[in-house]
Amino acid sequence: MDKTNVKNESITRQEDDFAQWYTDICLKAELMAYARTKGFIVYRPYGYAIWEAIKSWFDAEIKKTGHHNVYLPSLIPESLLNEEKEHVEGFAPECAIVTIGGSKPLAEKLYVRPTSETLFCDYFKDIVHSFRDLPVKDNQWCSVVRWEKTTRPFLRGSEFLWQEGHTLHATREEAEAETLGQLRLYERMGRELLAIPFTSGRKTESEKFAGAVDTYTIEALMKDGQALQSGTSHFFGQGFAEHFGIKFLDADNVQKTPWQTSWGASTRLIGAVIMVHGDDNGLVLPPFIAPTQAIIIPIRGDKDPQVAQAAIRLKEELAKAGIRVDLDDSKKSPGWKFSQYEMKGVPVRIEVGPRDVAQGVVTLTRRCDGAKQVLPLDQVAARMPEILKDIHETMYAKALAYTESHTTTCYTYDQLKEVVTTGKGYARVMWCGSHECEVKVKNDVSATSRCMPFDQTPFADTCCICGQPARAVVLFDRAY
Amino acid sequence: MDKTNVKNESITRQEDDFAQWYTDICLKAELMAYARTKGFIVYRPYGYAIWEAIKSWFDAEIKKTGHHNVYLPSLIPESLLNEEKEHVEGFAPECAIVTIGGSKPLAEKLYVRPTSETLFCDYFKDIVHSFRDLPVKDNQWCSVVRWEKTTRPFLRGSEFLWQEGHTLHATREEAEAETLGQLRLYERMGRELLAIPFTSGRKTESEKFAGAVDTYTIEALMKDGQALQSGTSHFFGQGFAEHFGIKFLDADNVQKTPWQTSWGASTRLIGAVIMVHGDDNGLVLPPFIAPTQAIIIPIRGDKDPQVAQAAIRLKEELAKAGIRVDLDDSKKSPGWKFSQYEMKGVPVRIEVGPRDVAQGVVTLTRRCDGAKQVLPLDQVAARMPEILKDIHETMYAKALAYTESHTTTCYTYDQLKEVVTTGKGYARVMWCGSHECEVKVKNDVSATSRCMPFDQTPFADTCCICGQPARAVVLFDRAY
Repeated sequence: MDKTNVKNESITRQEDDFAQWYTDICLKAELMAYARTKGFIVYRPYGYAIWEAIKSWFDAEIKKTGHHNVYLPSLIPESLLNEEKEHVEGFAPECAIVTIGGSKPLAEKLYVRPTSETLFCDYFKDIVHSFRDLPVKDNQWCSVVRWEKTTRPFLRGSEFLWQEGHTLHATREEAEAETLGQLRLYERMGRELLAIPFTSGRKTESEKFAGAVDTYTIEALMKDGQALQSGTSHFFGQGFAEHFGIKFLDADNVQKTPWQTSWGASTRLIGAVIMVHGDDNGLVLPPFIAPTQAIIIPIRGDKDPQVAQAAIRLKEELAKAGIRVDLDDSKKSPGWKFSQYEMKGVPVRIEVGPRDVAQGVVTLTRRCDGAKQVLPLDQVAARMPEILKDIHETMYAKALAYTESHTTTCYTYDQLKEVVTTGKGYARVMWCGSHECEVKVKNDVSATSRCMPFDQTPFADTCCICGQPARAVVLFDRAY
Repeated sequence: MDKTNVKNESITRQEDDFAQWYTDICLKAELMAYARTKGFIVYRPYGYAIWEAIKSWFDAEIKKTGHHNVYLPSLIPESLLNEEKEHVEGFAPECAIVTIGGSKPLAEKLYVRPTSETLFCDYFKDIVHSFRDLPVKDNQWCSVVRWEKTTRPFLRGSEFLWQEGHTLHATREEAEAETLGQLRLYERMGRELLAIPFTSGRKTESEKFAGAVDTYTIEALMKDGQALQSGTSHFFGQGFAEHFGIKFLDADNVQKTPWQTSWGASTRLIGAVIMVHGDDNGLVLPPFIAPTQAIIIPIRGDKDPQVAQAAIRLKEELAKAGIRVDLDDSKKSPGWKFSQYEMKGVPVRIEVGPRDVAQGVVTLTRRCDGAKQVLPLDQVAARMPEILKDIHETMYAKALAYTESHTTTCYTYDQLKEVVTTGKGYARVMWCGSHECEVKVKNDVSATSRCMPFDQTPFADTCCICGQPARAVVLFDRAY
């Protein structure tokens, strides 16, 4: 029996209980642990390393386009948060608040940062005076705290890690281009790094960020058909800048108010990776973010010194070629090891057995589809970059096919309801633009508008919910 | 008149007011800004980039020795902090405390992390069961909050950025080796990255970390003769592990308590860099952490297209060679630019003038000593790595000579007092080991024991403070 096809008994099957499957993966692949602080988690080495790979890719990209990293306080004075009314109403209810400092009650409450727009505005006000100071293109890597009643690892937690970009521009056009440019960068991160085909578009009025003129989003479709908002990019217009008194003297000697954006993506992306790619055997990691890209498993290495030596040499060659490789020469059985590294989602398993070594070959098995390949030992290191690239493409294509087959154009409200309640993914509908229709869908089937995709070609004249004249194409789905 | 020797008028001179000089540099070199949250700062792009260079070096080094990054909650339940008595007494008074979450008073107070020993212990308890789980070698990059009455940028703030390493080992020997190994790594970071000759040793009982068996420190000598504790490495013995119930089944089938360490260094290092290397013209950055390593300044580039082209080509060549290079072709005067980049501490200035270009050469000026060098244009990129290395060595040698000339072996208490009150640096004395003598020195001249250096060769029989039999060599100094 091929051990690789044996389901890992300790993991709940997706079709039995998707939520429990997800939690099993998070804990058993050692991505996280529950922390003593209620609602908070420990990002364990294997989970944090995925975040490091995401950070490293994204950080390099934003630096290429002239963004700089900064760090602002983790605590925000209440008076500062209060300066933008809509914003404070959106965030204050879910904040953790410091009221004691240095053993004494504080004169003013300090909010643990839920997001940093207000602090950035206050800082920008001090450093921007002339058109020569623009654009300002800052980014911050930090943690944020949002008080959540029900939490799920990586998806919804009282604390998560993220990047928040904050920029100021002399013109509306430039700020809009920045907003969309960063959205495109998130999409590209899905395409090139996470093997996730994000669906992008603009949020409806009711799903917008508190204080934004426009909010754009990247949404990903999980294997249970639900959507996961995976990153957002906001165009603020001049609202925040006006409230906070940010002004600059333009080249024409006129005092003007700059245009602003912000954009963020978080450790939620780890949740997306788990639920887009994972299967009943565990995690399936896209190769470019996998902490271990290839695992070498010697068969009878303890009894056959040639096997042990070949395994060590292969590890050295792969490491030298820049591959993140590990060798498991522990005393556990090959079968146990196969299951273990499948569960951890390692993209390539390399078996080094006595007969193989005698023939100068090894067997490679791809985690994403179980495909096997026998390769000459001395070609493995040279071929590995291409193998990883191919795995990445296979995973992307599979996720794209899933997203396409789980997007249904609906012409009636019954169709919409059927699609979102049966895990069929996005219901693509024409909508009148009213908040009431969104509320109705939410009340009836717990689904929300995920986005208005960029392709707004109409396919019906009336709103599929109320029958009034249609104004926009919208994707509805249940969401995390 | 050589413009490069004109003092930057906007910076206070070191000898006039060292503290004001320091603040001037922090603000005018745009390393930081004061934030609206009292006692907190904004780490601006130029300051944060220095921290990124430090992070990147240190992170690569600890990974080479098998350490992994993790992330634990920023908020610690009061009951957890209370589990180690000495520790909570050391930290609780300087904590910021969350008492409200999600608009409701919390049942239990949450302390904003001042350090994470207690959280790590609680986590370790869950994941360590067998000798096979050891060693655990974790590290966390994060911010910590400590409520400070008087704050100074980078040196003492209510919030700073740091790394905190936390490790568990099966044996005392291994944990002690880890403690000292990490101390040596901090020293090496001084030698290879920051151009700072750290003075290292063990802390006296009264200067130890709350809960540690031994605390080791790296101290740096600032240009005003005061010491700056720049990093610490702690050996915890089994104290924390016992309090938190961390146990493992050893290979001999006996339940044992592991041995523990922690070690940290912070954005304080930026303060050390400023005060070890800076001068009356501003910041002087060691080349390997400088955000800009070379600045190209074209002379009459707006009037001479050959100059402009040569400057652009040189920038491209340097960037291609991996040098962090900038070109300032703005309309400001060369003199203004010279002062500006001196103030920002850019290691190498490259002037590209019309006569130079005609001859195919450029003039390089080193920030650290003003030394000039004329080089063929086409050799600059190839030679730059060696030039930067040489600047680094010059800076290190200068700082080492300063530290050596500011360490005075004292035989009498009057000598000790004279040394530490006149900015002469470390007073190296024999000490009886009593807390009372340390208190006396603190009360008399506001100096503290910085460390007991590793070289403990006695040079007198009696304590220079009380005259009792001497037990240790100690360095005293005033400190930040």
